[in-house]
Amino acid sequence: MHAYFSDDQLRHHGQTFMVAGEPKPIPEVPERAEILSTAVKRLGLDLREPGDFGMGPIAAIHAPEYLKFLQTIHDEWKTAGGSELVVPSIHPFDRMGPYPRSHIGKAGFHLGDTSCPVSKTTWQSAYASAQAAIAAARDVRDHGHKSAYALCRPPGHHASRDIAGGFCYLNNSAIAAQELRAKYDRVAILDVDLHHGNGTQHIFYTRDDVMTLSIHADPGVFYPFFWGHAEERGQDAGLGFNHNYPLPLGSGNDVFLAALDRALSMIDHFSADAVVIALGLDASQDDPFGGLAITPDGFAEIGKKIGGVKLPTVLVQEGGYVSNTLAENLFQFVSAFRATIAESPE
Amino acid sequence: MHAYFSDDQLRHHGQTFMVAGEPKPIPEVPERAEILSTAVKRLGLDLREPGDFGMGPIAAIHAPEYLKFLQTIHDEWKTAGGSELVVPSIHPFDRMGPYPRSHIGKAGFHLGDTSCPVSKTTWQSAYASAQAAIAAARDVRDHGHKSAYALCRPPGHHASRDIAGGFCYLNNSAIAAQELRAKYDRVAILDVDLHHGNGTQHIFYTRDDVMTLSIHADPGVFYPFFWGHAEERGQDAGLGFNHNYPLPLGSGNDVFLAALDRALSMIDHFSADAVVIALGLDASQDDPFGGLAITPDGFAEIGKKIGGVKLPTVLVQEGGYVSNTLAENLFQFVSAFRATIAESPE
Repeated sequence: MHAYFSDDQLRHHGQTFMVAGEPKPIPEVPERAEILSTAVKRLGLDLREPGDFGMGPIAAIHAPEYLKFLQTIHDEWKTAGGSELVVPSIHPFDRMGPYPRSHIGKAGFHLGDTSCPVSKTTWQSAYASAQAAIAAARDVRDHGHKSAYALCRPPGHHASRDIAGGFCYLNNSAIAAQELRAKYDRVAILDVDLHHGNGTQHIFYTRDDVMTLSIHADPGVFYPFFWGHAEERGQDAGLGFNHNYPLPLGSGNDVFLAALDRALSMIDHFSADAVVIALGLDASQDDPFGGLAITPDGFAEIGKKIGGVKLPTVLVQEGGYVSNTLAENLFQFVSAFRATIAESPE
Repeated sequence: MHAYFSDDQLRHHGQTFMVAGEPKPIPEVPERAEILSTAVKRLGLDLREPGDFGMGPIAAIHAPEYLKFLQTIHDEWKTAGGSELVVPSIHPFDRMGPYPRSHIGKAGFHLGDTSCPVSKTTWQSAYASAQAAIAAARDVRDHGHKSAYALCRPPGHHASRDIAGGFCYLNNSAIAAQELRAKYDRVAILDVDLHHGNGTQHIFYTRDDVMTLSIHADPGVFYPFFWGHAEERGQDAGLGFNHNYPLPLGSGNDVFLAALDRALSMIDHFSADAVVIALGLDASQDDPFGGLAITPDGFAEIGKKIGGVKLPTVLVQEGGYVSNTLAENLFQFVSAFRATIAESPE
């Protein structure tokens, strides 16, 4: 099993976001990647540079104007007299009008909330994070590896086709899934992050070739607030190919694992040929978000059950914030996952 | 001609909003109403208390959950530990999901940008402002007056059925128009505010009984950014009953008056039975927003042309911010309007 990461991913730092009207430090800090990398080393894996696969795999998921926005808005915003970070203040409640021409309009069109500010280095890190996901997906798709791990940071699952959100800019899990689709007919994305994977859901909502499943804290009272309810099941051809498992705040291992069993049985029913795990670790009982209460043993059990699917699997890092057990939770998950998927030596 | 206002309208003060990432003072201050009232007195009009017409006329325009939100969110937000003012930080880019249960979700659902914070006194002032509009509309509708003026503050034209925005909470112009509809078959709302009347447009977008027209600074580069383009012409039954006249930044009297001629000819073609003027004064050359360059003489000319329509007319105050000519601009508009509509003594 290979693990991918590059130092460019450390360059982005979003600083602050608004929580109920108050500015708070963004917990999606570069230090996260350093902590997670200690777990990777403890697992006996090398962190490899992903290389550069270019824009193709990213453009297969995201809209051209959005990719241009991410690369150019910081300069445009600063030139127009904007603040150091690009943050939105007005949003289109419909998206029917012509594409906005001003920097403020573009920011509101493409940034869904205040937790995805764009700095001078955001594109560089988001691009590098996506390359790590692509490298991991191609390990599995092209090189016969049963699994691979992408230490993606910034994360991706709140980013939709043309809207950033929740510390996310490019949807690494969606990009990995689309890469897998070149070989596998049916791909499932299972999101175990504390927060609903609304961007991923949105990207594949009308498709029946990529099933999206997400286990998360009840969005009625938790970010992203507007998506992640059980009744969101997909649309048109995608109807029945999106499954949400919202859990009551504070739920622990048992409740999470019961939902996981339901999700895995759905993946089995779908006859998936390959799987992407959107591997958030912020469901941890120690995570500063405090939404769910998974223990390190719980993450081991989650990893074991997911390994039991025995399908080609790409692990894509999503959330999980600085706590005493952040590295331990990744170690426990991946150890148990690898033991169960019973890899042959690579 | 009667003019309506009540002191409750002074209670709301939104404090700050975000402009390109920086907090700025909200210019929609209570002092505006005091300045405008000097013009009313100079016109020889008394400012009358509107009385209380209840929730019926407001509920004819706005959604029940939105009206409940405006009345209860400040308490709910504070109880949940939120900041002194209710401000949104995440918005639904679709509006398809279940109604949000949390205070943060509700704020993002109902507040379209950062320029419509909700304080403890917001509802009281917004409700009183709407009552002034209702009183003016009933003066015209029920009491045979050719025109009436509502000194509405907070303003209303950016508020849609269930979304506040741009210093606006209840759409006073829309409420007045709906009141007129009880007597008149065809009502036109002509918005001469510097900013596109996006809330008003949205409310009547599929209707053919209320024509909406707005002359404003080009929204490609000016608030509200996403609406107000010439190609937005209405939808379904309302197709052809919405008309936008975006003007280049810095346009003066001549350009504005040419657009006004086109709008008035459209109102004539519509065979309107009554008119609401969404009377923003921020197209002034002296307004701090600096988007257009109308002189006091220009406002007199605008008032004269609108008076020339000679239909029952309700003037509803919208924007217009503190400057040396704010009172003068209102005085010039209303003087010329009254002279032209050639009122019989009331």
